Amino acid sequence: MKFARYGERGAEKPALVDANGNLRDLSGHADDIAGDVLTRLDTFKSIDPETLPLVEGNPRIGACVGQTGKFICIGLNYADHAAESGMEVPPEPVIFAKYTSAICGPNDPIIIPRGSEKTDWEVELGFVIGKKAKYVSEANAMDHVAGFCLINDVSERSYQIERAGQWSKGKSSDNFGPTGPWLVTPDEVGDFDKLGMWLEVNGERVQDGSTATMVYRVPHLISYLSQFFTLHPGDIISTGTPPGVGLGFNPPRYLKAGDVVELGIDGLGTQRQVCVNDD
Amino acid sequence: MKFARYGERGAEKPALVDANGNLRDLSGHADDIAGDVLTRLDTFKSIDPETLPLVEGNPRIGACVGQTGKFICIGLNYADHAAESGMEVPPEPVIFAKYTSAICGPNDPIIIPRGSEKTDWEVELGFVIGKKAKYVSEANAMDHVAGFCLINDVSERSYQIERAGQWSKGKSSDNFGPTGPWLVTPDEVGDFDKLGMWLEVNGERVQDGSTATMVYRVPHLISYLSQFFTLHPGDIISTGTPPGVGLGFNPPRYLKAGDVVELGIDGLGTQRQVCVNDD
Repeated sequence: MKFARYGERGAEKPALVDANGNLRDLSGHADDIAGDVLTRLDTFKSIDPETLPLVEGNPRIGACVGQTGKFICIGLNYADHAAESGMEVPPEPVIFAKYTSAICGPNDPIIIPRGSEKTDWEVELGFVIGKKAKYVSEANAMDHVAGFCLINDVSERSYQIERAGQWSKGKSSDNFGPTGPWLVTPDEVGDFDKLGMWLEVNGERVQDGSTATMVYRVPHLISYLSQFFTLHPGDIISTGTPPGVGLGFNPPRYLKAGDVVELGIDGLGTQRQVCVNDD
Repeated sequence: MKFARYGERGAEKPALVDANGNLRDLSGHADDIAGDVLTRLDTFKSIDPETLPLVEGNPRIGACVGQTGKFICIGLNYADHAAESGMEVPPEPVIFAKYTSAICGPNDPIIIPRGSEKTDWEVELGFVIGKKAKYVSEANAMDHVAGFCLINDVSERSYQIERAGQWSKGKSSDNFGPTGPWLVTPDEVGDFDKLGMWLEVNGERVQDGSTATMVYRVPHLISYLSQFFTLHPGDIISTGTPPGVGLGFNPPRYLKAGDVVELGIDGLGTQRQVCVNDD
C-alpha cells in the first residue's frame, strides 16, 4: 500500500493511493498518517480504495508522515559519497539530526536561507518507524518499519562544515526536509537493497545510484539506533546519499533561486522543488 | 509567573505555581503549557492563583513545556568548561541536537543505557521560545522568549565522542533531558546573566557556577539561531554548562545505578534524579 497526506501545511489529510495513482481520502478511517495509525497500517488492506472518496483537483502534497519526533540522518553511508566528500566510511554509523521543523512536502520550494551560497541536494532512501523499538535485534528490526519514502536531505555546506561544529546547523533550515510523496509499506517496496535512485538539477542528472551500495543497511540501522534511544512511531530515518552532490563537483555546484530539483527512487515516487530566496 | 506540568507522562496537566510554591491547576484556562498557550502566558497574570484548584497530594512533575519541536543545545558555551573538555571556545556558537524523546520530568530517573560506562551530568540554563522567531535582531530577541527553566543535559561521553561523529548520539538517550520543574517568565527571573547554578552527586557539589561566565548570551543565541531556521513556540534552547562535569575530573567520574543527582539554578527550582540501569 501507498499512503499520502494532502492539503495545506499543518492541516494535511490522510489518503491512500489507488492502483491508478489517484489519491483516495482516508479521513473516514484515520485522523492522520501519524502516531498510533502507523501501528495499524495493515488494517487498511481490507479497504477497497475504490470505495473511498476520490480526491479532486490538484492539492498540495504534504510530507507523507505527520507528528515526527525524531528525524535521524545517517552520514557517509555510501562508500563512493564518502570519497567525494573527502571522508572515510565510518567504523559505525554516523548519525546526525535534522530538526523536524525542516520537514515539508515533496514539491514545496527549497528555501535558500538569506546569505546562503552553498545550498546542496542529497537524494536519500528514508523509512518511518511504525512500532516502538528499543534494543531490537537485526532479525526483528523490520517489524518496526511502517514504510519507506523518498527524502531530499537538503544541506547548506557552509553552515554544516565551516560554521563551528556539528552538522545539524547546516541540515535544518526551513524546508530542508522534503519527505514523500508516499509512505510505501515494506511488502510493496520489495527488495529495498536494490532500488535505483536519481536526482536532476535543471534536467541534468547529477546523482544516479542504487541502495545496493549502501554501507550500513536498514535492519542494522534500526538495531543500532535502538541501542541508544527508543525509536517511536513517526520517527524518520534517512539513510544517506550516493555520489553526485554539489559539494563533490570540481568546482562545487550549489543551488540558486530558479533552479529546479527533481529526484526519485524506484517505487517511491518523485519530488520536484523550485529553489527560491528567503526574502 | 511560574508554570509547571504535573501528572503521568504524556498526560500532564498545566499548573501555575502560587506564592507558597503550591501547584494550582490551570486546566480551566489552558490545555497545556505548550504551543499557542506559550504565546499568551501574559494573559494568566490577571488570574488570582488562590482562585485556582489546589493540586492535592504529591504528583509527578513533568517537563515544564510540552510539544517541543526542537531541543537545541549550545556546546562549549562556558570558557572554563571548554578548557576542562580540552576544547577551545568556538568562534561562533556550536549547536547540537538532543532528540525530543529524551525530554522528561525534573525528578524522573536518569536511565543509564545498557552497557554505558560514561553517563555524565551538565546543569544548564534553558529557555523556551514563546513566539515564532526568524531573522530576529538581538535587540528584539527577548520578545520571543516564553520563559526560563532548569535542564540537566545528561550525556554519554563514549557515545558522544568515541562512537563515530556528531554529538547527538550521546545526548539523546531516553530520559537524558530532565526539564523543569518550572517555566519561569523573564520578568520573574530578572537578570538572567547573573544566576548561580550548581549540581551535586550523592551530596557532593561538583558544579558551582554562574551564568555570568557564559560566552554567547541568550539574546545573541536567539538572533544567531534564527538566521538558520525558524524557532517555534515550545522549542527549548539549553545554553551550555559551567565546569565540573564528570569528564573533566582526573580520572573522569561517571554515574552508576543508585547515584543521586541534584541540581538547581537561582529562581528556577531544583531537580533530583536517581540513576537506574536500563534492565
